[in-house]
Amino acid sequence: MYFLLEYLPGSRISLRWLYCSSAGVGCRKAELPVAFVVFKSRCGAALATQSQQHPHPLLWITEMAPEPRDVSWRTLAIPYRIVPLYKIGVVLAASLLTIFFAIPVTAVQGIAKFEKLKKWFPPAMAVQLIPGLSSVLTGYLPSVVLKGFIYIVPFAMLGMAKLAGCISKSKEEIKACNMVFYFLVGNVFFLSVLSGSLLDEIGESFNHPKNFPSHLASAVSAQADFFITYILTDGLSGFSLEILQPGLLFWDFIKSHTFGCGTEKDPYLYSLPYFRIIPMVCLSVLIGTVYAVVAPLLLPFLVGYFCLGYLVFINQIQDVYEIVYETCGQYWPYIHHYILVAIVLMQINMIGIFGLKSMPAASISTVPLLLLTLMFNEYCKKCFLPTFHHYSIENAVENDEIDAKSGEMEVNYEDVINAYCSPCLRPVNFLTSESSSTQPLVSSL
Amino acid sequence: MYFLLEYLPGSRISLRWLYCSSAGVGCRKAELPVAFVVFKSRCGAALATQSQQHPHPLLWITEMAPEPRDVSWRTLAIPYRIVPLYKIGVVLAASLLTIFFAIPVTAVQGIAKFEKLKKWFPPAMAVQLIPGLSSVLTGYLPSVVLKGFIYIVPFAMLGMAKLAGCISKSKEEIKACNMVFYFLVGNVFFLSVLSGSLLDEIGESFNHPKNFPSHLASAVSAQADFFITYILTDGLSGFSLEILQPGLLFWDFIKSHTFGCGTEKDPYLYSLPYFRIIPMVCLSVLIGTVYAVVAPLLLPFLVGYFCLGYLVFINQIQDVYEIVYETCGQYWPYIHHYILVAIVLMQINMIGIFGLKSMPAASISTVPLLLLTLMFNEYCKKCFLPTFHHYSIENAVENDEIDAKSGEMEVNYEDVINAYCSPCLRPVNFLTSESSSTQPLVSSL
Repeated sequence: MYFLLEYLPGSRISLRWLYCSSAGVGCRKAELPVAFVVFKSRCGAALATQSQQHPHPLLWITEMAPEPRDVSWRTLAIPYRIVPLYKIGVVLAASLLTIFFAIPVTAVQGIAKFEKLKKWFPPAMAVQLIPGLSSVLTGYLPSVVLKGFIYIVPFAMLGMAKLAGCISKSKEEIKACNMVFYFLVGNVFFLSVLSGSLLDEIGESFNHPKNFPSHLASAVSAQADFFITYILTDGLSGFSLEILQPGLLFWDFIKSHTFGCGTEKDPYLYSLPYFRIIPMVCLSVLIGTVYAVVAPLLLPFLVGYFCLGYLVFINQIQDVYEIVYETCGQYWPYIHHYILVAIVLMQINMIGIFGLKSMPAASISTVPLLLLTLMFNEYCKKCFLPTFHHYSIENAVENDEIDAKSGEMEVNYEDVINAYCSPCLRPVNFLTSESSSTQPLVSSL
Repeated sequence: MYFLLEYLPGSRISLRWLYCSSAGVGCRKAELPVAFVVFKSRCGAALATQSQQHPHPLLWITEMAPEPRDVSWRTLAIPYRIVPLYKIGVVLAASLLTIFFAIPVTAVQGIAKFEKLKKWFPPAMAVQLIPGLSSVLTGYLPSVVLKGFIYIVPFAMLGMAKLAGCISKSKEEIKACNMVFYFLVGNVFFLSVLSGSLLDEIGESFNHPKNFPSHLASAVSAQADFFITYILTDGLSGFSLEILQPGLLFWDFIKSHTFGCGTEKDPYLYSLPYFRIIPMVCLSVLIGTVYAVVAPLLLPFLVGYFCLGYLVFINQIQDVYEIVYETCGQYWPYIHHYILVAIVLMQINMIGIFGLKSMPAASISTVPLLLLTLMFNEYCKKCFLPTFHHYSIENAVENDEIDAKSGEMEVNYEDVINAYCSPCLRPVNFLTSESSSTQPLVSSL
């Protein structure tokens, strides 16, 4: 029997456990193929998680356990062999959503152009009677439609990520964050860029990858106006919606009136929705990076957007949202990756623009810059990424020594025993459990 | 101070050490940034190699040490920070050789066609006077020219791999093996396939990747004859050359007559040149896999080739070559990868052929097969590859226990102390050291 006791780098003590999945090895008649193993020292836990235990690498998998409040108990019951199928299924579903989401959006955006709206829906002519409204409508309507569709996507992605067999809620959210970012790049950036031209230009680009930079450059420069309005809409509506939280209010209203269980049990406190906010902000970074050269007029709007965002989120984080789990900076490698995607797109765009302006020398000399960026990415992966995944032995031993000196080892060990308790084994408070669905389970115990 | 003692899975005891590179951490005034660390148990060594020691992952790198006779002492002196530059340099040089090697080969192959030979070198007309010789010349000459050029490439690649900063000779050879395989695929398979058509068809394929399968299919079917003669030449000449070893004989002759040091010091014993043989055989596997559908007539020749190869190499391995280091099956993942490249190429070719025969349904239904092959590759990477890189803790502990029972732990520990001795610190035998270059180093000690 091993014991793991681990501190986070910060001052706050949080206990983490080892997640260990064994398919029949060690314990022959295991009820679940998963176990939390506690180590006597951090050093032992760090060594156990980073090494291969069994000659067959998939028979005995060790991972650092998430925080007790972060454990996704539902997915722990899934046998490890089936998890890849879940993952492939989720990736397929997310890809299908990303690819075929384009169809309703382009359809609605096509109709939402005022000239077409007049043709399809003649009463819209009335708008022209009010001076000024027509131009506001033409400018804002397509991006409002887009925003409406996009608001619901992160929740769908989070729902899908919950099925992907992640062992912790934080990993589910990171997965959703990734899927939402690529969704936004595909469906907001690329689709809006290409909506000015025709859709079969995408097919054209796939057939002639060499012409991709010039296609991108011509399409990007044509759509600068759209993205200025997009940033404005996002800044004005997005952040005000963030403060008002109409979606959660609406959801809470439905829940309290249909399920009838009221909000006393679940107070109106949620965690910061990283899976929705990080991709949104990273998309703005991407738009800003790509348009920094093509249309610098967009940048002041972006600065305004970021300032407003800073004010809003400082308030939201301090006063509105609850901390459900410590992120431990685990989002940073992903944000770094998104920024790199933005820089690579910007450089491809530059190659195309120099080509369009018929400056082949400048176009060709941007190619090494692109290669250097990719090499810098490889360097960062080697140099900084392992620290996000592994707990280094030196740190573990240092923290163990500090604990041994202060005699906290025993205290932490006592805490650990009760920290990881499955929800179905927790003592039930009969006074607050008004949901009838838990009653038979309690009586059977 | 740690101690490592490790057995290979076989019955033979071989001692391996830990290679540990620290750039200024631990030992401040290190003369070399590298150290061999000996562990008391295999388990400790396995844990140390598989875990991250320092928060900065590149400051303290731990690796399993190669066998004492396999250590590449020259490269151990290179600081770890510069090693990536060496690696990039070698990859660039190998890529340049692979890409621009095409130019002399196509030139010579173009001339070696008998019709052109008559035009460029009129005395060749005399060949037509001897009946039968003309057809032999037309069939064999291009592939003999190709073989001649290709014979020297593996040695050049091995020379380059020696500069790539690998810590062991076996890793250098594996690197060379990889480079030679891609060289052969590029310059023997693709170039011969495309030499029938024009070279700018490659450029065409790069611009229209969608048309690549049909281009490949039409080119592959046209070159079946060439590959039958190639397999025949390789089978007849390659294996007879392997037995006769004219290259090594010639090299030994030059060495003994120019350097004047004779062959007493280095007896005429070399290790099996994996870097030359594995890519050659894998290329034949690739040709066989790709042509199995297009031109099954090639397969009997290939079976003959493999049978002859089996006989020749059984003899060579048993009686001719010396074992310089244990490969421990480290070549297998690479051979598996080469076979997978062959299968993927075959399936792309199939897609093209079904397209050419205007059977779009069959062509499209081959695409999922290709995806399944790639997914199988991912599965193998996850399921089997870690075992080639990591020594599992379970095995290490088991072997430790066996040793502890038989009391061999102490014996092995004694052996270890003297096993890893740098060549410059070894006691010099003054009777046999006729090279004057080692003299000052010895006297300075």
